[in-house]
Amino acid sequence: MKNSGLRHILEARQFTPEFMEKIFAEASSLREEVENGNYHGLFKTARELENRGMFILFYEPSTRTRFSFSDAAQRLGMRVTSTEDAKIFSSVAKGETLEDTIQVLCEYYPDVIVLRHHETGAAMRAAKVSSVPIINAGDGIGEHPTQALLDIYTIQQCLGRIDDINIMMIGDLLNGRTVRSLAYLLAKYKGVKIIFCSPKELGMNQDIISYLQRKEIKVEVLDYFLQDIEDVDVIYQTRIQKERGSEIDDELEKKFALVPEKVKKLNQNAIIMHPLPRNNEISTEIDFNPRARYFRQAGNGMFIRMALLKWMLSPL
Amino acid sequence: MKNSGLRHILEARQFTPEFMEKIFAEASSLREEVENGNYHGLFKTARELENRGMFILFYEPSTRTRFSFSDAAQRLGMRVTSTEDAKIFSSVAKGETLEDTIQVLCEYYPDVIVLRHHETGAAMRAAKVSSVPIINAGDGIGEHPTQALLDIYTIQQCLGRIDDINIMMIGDLLNGRTVRSLAYLLAKYKGVKIIFCSPKELGMNQDIISYLQRKEIKVEVLDYFLQDIEDVDVIYQTRIQKERGSEIDDELEKKFALVPEKVKKLNQNAIIMHPLPRNNEISTEIDFNPRARYFRQAGNGMFIRMALLKWMLSPL
Amino acid sequence: MKNSGLRHILEARQFTPEFMEKIFAEASSLREEVENGNYHGLFKTARELENRGMFILFYEPSTRTRFSFSDAAQRLGMRVTSTEDAKIFSSVAKGETLEDTIQVLCEYYPDVIVLRHHETGAAMRAAKVSSVPIINAGDGIGEHPTQALLDIYTIQQCLGRIDDINIMMIGDLLNGRTVRSLAYLLAKYKGVKIIFCSPKELGMNQDIISYLQRKEIKVEVLDYFLQDIEDVDVIYQTRIQKERGSEIDDELEKKFALVPEKVKKLNQNAIIMHPLPRNNEISTEIDFNPRARYFRQAGNGMFIRMALLKWMLSPL
Repeated sequence: MKNSGLRHILEARQFTPEFMEKIFAEASSLREEVENGNYHGLFKTARELENRGMFILFYEPSTRTRFSFSDAAQRLGMRVTSTEDAKIFSSVAKGETLEDTIQVLCEYYPDVIVLRHHETGAAMRAAKVSSVPIINAGDGIGEHPTQALLDIYTIQQCLGRIDDINIMMIGDLLNGRTVRSLAYLLAKYKGVKIIFCSPKELGMNQDIISYLQRKEIKVEVLDYFLQDIEDVDVIYQTRIQKERGSEIDDELEKKFALVPEKVKKLNQNAIIMHPLPRNNEISTEIDFNPRARYFRQAGNGMFIRMALLKWMLSPL
Repeated sequence: MKNSGLRHILEARQFTPEFMEKIFAEASSLREEVENGNYHGLFKTARELENRGMFILFYEPSTRTRFSFSDAAQRLGMRVTSTEDAKIFSSVAKGETLEDTIQVLCEYYPDVIVLRHHETGAAMRAAKVSSVPIINAGDGIGEHPTQALLDIYTIQQCLGRIDDINIMMIGDLLNGRTVRSLAYLLAKYKGVKIIFCSPKELGMNQDIISYLQRKEIKVEVLDYFLQDIEDVDVIYQTRIQKERGSEIDDELEKKFALVPEKVKKLNQNAIIMHPLPRNNEISTEIDFNPRARYFRQAGNGMFIRMALLKWMLSPL
Repeated sequence: MKNSGLRHILEARQFTPEFMEKIFAEASSLREEVENGNYHGLFKTARELENRGMFILFYEPSTRTRFSFSDAAQRLGMRVTSTEDAKIFSSVAKGETLEDTIQVLCEYYPDVIVLRHHETGAAMRAAKVSSVPIINAGDGIGEHPTQALLDIYTIQQCLGRIDDINIMMIGDLLNGRTVRSLAYLLAKYKGVKIIFCSPKELGMNQDIISYLQRKEIKVEVLDYFLQDIEDVDVIYQTRIQKERGSEIDDELEKKFALVPEKVKKLNQNAIIMHPLPRNNEISTEIDFNPRARYFRQAGNGMFIRMALLKWMLSPL
């Protein structure tokens, strides 16, 4: 690393439970401030990171992630300059390496670079040559650590705990990077049980299962949608990632979809999560069920990103 | 509607003459401030909407409209995050519905979402699920209400009145959404006469004509360019919308074009408008004629949008 | 010109040595402020151009140039609205001329328009109809004056002088617009010697060579990489512009590449420059050599652009 003192956000595994607890408290305080926002006074945080700048360098489109980073930074008073798709709009077309692009951007003295890239490991490569902190906003089928963080935060926020939960992950566990990252983070907590439900051909990789077992996480692997779900605390539904080659027939897809009759069997306090975007794996009728937390979950992304920025750019 | 108290801007018909009068007065006052801008002092309005945020979600490209919304918001102190073409750059590619996208963006607590979409009725669909005000910045061949407002404002600004005017709308009346919206708004005023001049195959739809007649607007429908134009107060020229399938031969197109010899016949106080962009239907020599107001008309868009934002985001 | 009193930046030739000296001093002072930035106080310059607005209108992608203009403006407190590729995202698709687009944007009262365009001469055409200053950020194979300025500034900054230097320009001298603009600017200084090294088919055009000779600049033209380089002060390496049709075989390309063994022959104070992006014409090992100044050179772009904005928008 060029500067090992930098506070990069590169992979979910780097977060300790203590760190997460701090970030979650900050995120909750930021949410409270925004929800109760008195626009006629000044937000406490509105100028906290004034005179700081963010570059958003996306080689792959993502409106959701880009909007939340951009607004998070501006809410703290930061300057933001952004590209929607650097693969087209850049020197990449002229054969420039990611390393050179990062080194040039660093010469403009940003305070943080948010990078999304189609190649696994890109964020790590960027961090190696960067003189400013890098935030990995998704690299190929690799990591998307701020997404993992907002997932855990949503569980904590809705259930009041992360220890001692039963979580059922459903759908495309093979190509969904969010379920992998979330599993890694859950392994840092106690009394967690994970039930993986997916069509056989889209099952969770053995590397994660072995990792979880070493960490003494209870794991169950099913190739059908579990019917007996009254002890489940969290349903984590995912989309079949057709753009990454996942393929199953419609009949099978329906069997793993969440529909109102399945939701009825959940206990009152259980919550339903989804990293979004969704297709048909959660029917829209469920949106009105109080257990549905996937929109709130997405919204948590902005508060988590604000909290991370405050931590990254505060004095060491 | 999720929240019927929200001040959405969805269709031109929603504006009353009283409302328009208020917005026009505000727009004129904003223009005066900007034109006389003393940059060394602070603009009165520069922080009026500080701590408020706008999301600009465009599924169809439009530099002109996007620039004016973005700058209007920033001039009032707002944060802006924007996408140039969400059809490419977003979860849409992964099959997300407009409704889901809007619900996620709302969770980031913007104060307003500006939406442009290729499907007619999209803005109304967005408003149904949105917890924040939606501005329709054009939906397919449907509405573009802020454009209609700036058109009426330009007439008021240049002629000093909207009642008792003769307006001639020329060109592609079939596929131009601006002429439709403008006709709806003009029907709210008294003593208005509208002359529709277009090739037969691009004529104004009967629904509008019947509507105008019910509202006691005088209507004349011609399939040639009226020569006797000395009583006309407003020439509203439009482009043949080839990208929407409008097709006429070059000879016919020329007959409906505005050229200097036709302009000479106009009275001194008449004005020439065009929603822009233009192709050849107004020759560039006319740009120097004092009657030409189409660039000013476009510029009015920014002031109208500033005035609307102030109204939308002020306390109910 | 619509307004001959406007401070456009259109071509490198417009800069006098006196002007450049002033801009360079300002750029250095801005760099010092940013490098030593105490974020807890307010930057001296952070609100110097508050209430001013920049429109960035790019018809050709360029992340590097766009980011540095956008951040330069925001660092001075300006509003920025930007398009990444107006060729797709705009009324151009509907047949609008550059002149009309500029005239509409001017009606939104920006304080400056930064234009990048694929057609040579576009910036001059824009300036002819604009009521606000235009900055040419590259027009086809024409000019890119702020790039030329940052090149000269880098020489001044690293060597302490521009007079009496030996500079060797290497690579694609036929299609590289930066070497042309730089040569024009160097002709304004004394005691300069330029050595052009390129494959025969990619040699510097005779128009520049004649111009330099008229200005009494010493010129040497070589079709090989000069070995005896101990008197050279500046190596200015360039990329083979394959996208503009430049074509040479790999063997020949290698002969003109800069590799560590060639760098060893340079004197201690010599510097290595490159307009970037690079392909293989400078091997990455050289990045760690203290003579390598190409990343610093790119970074100078932001400070030069800040200094130009301050000059353009200060009272006449």
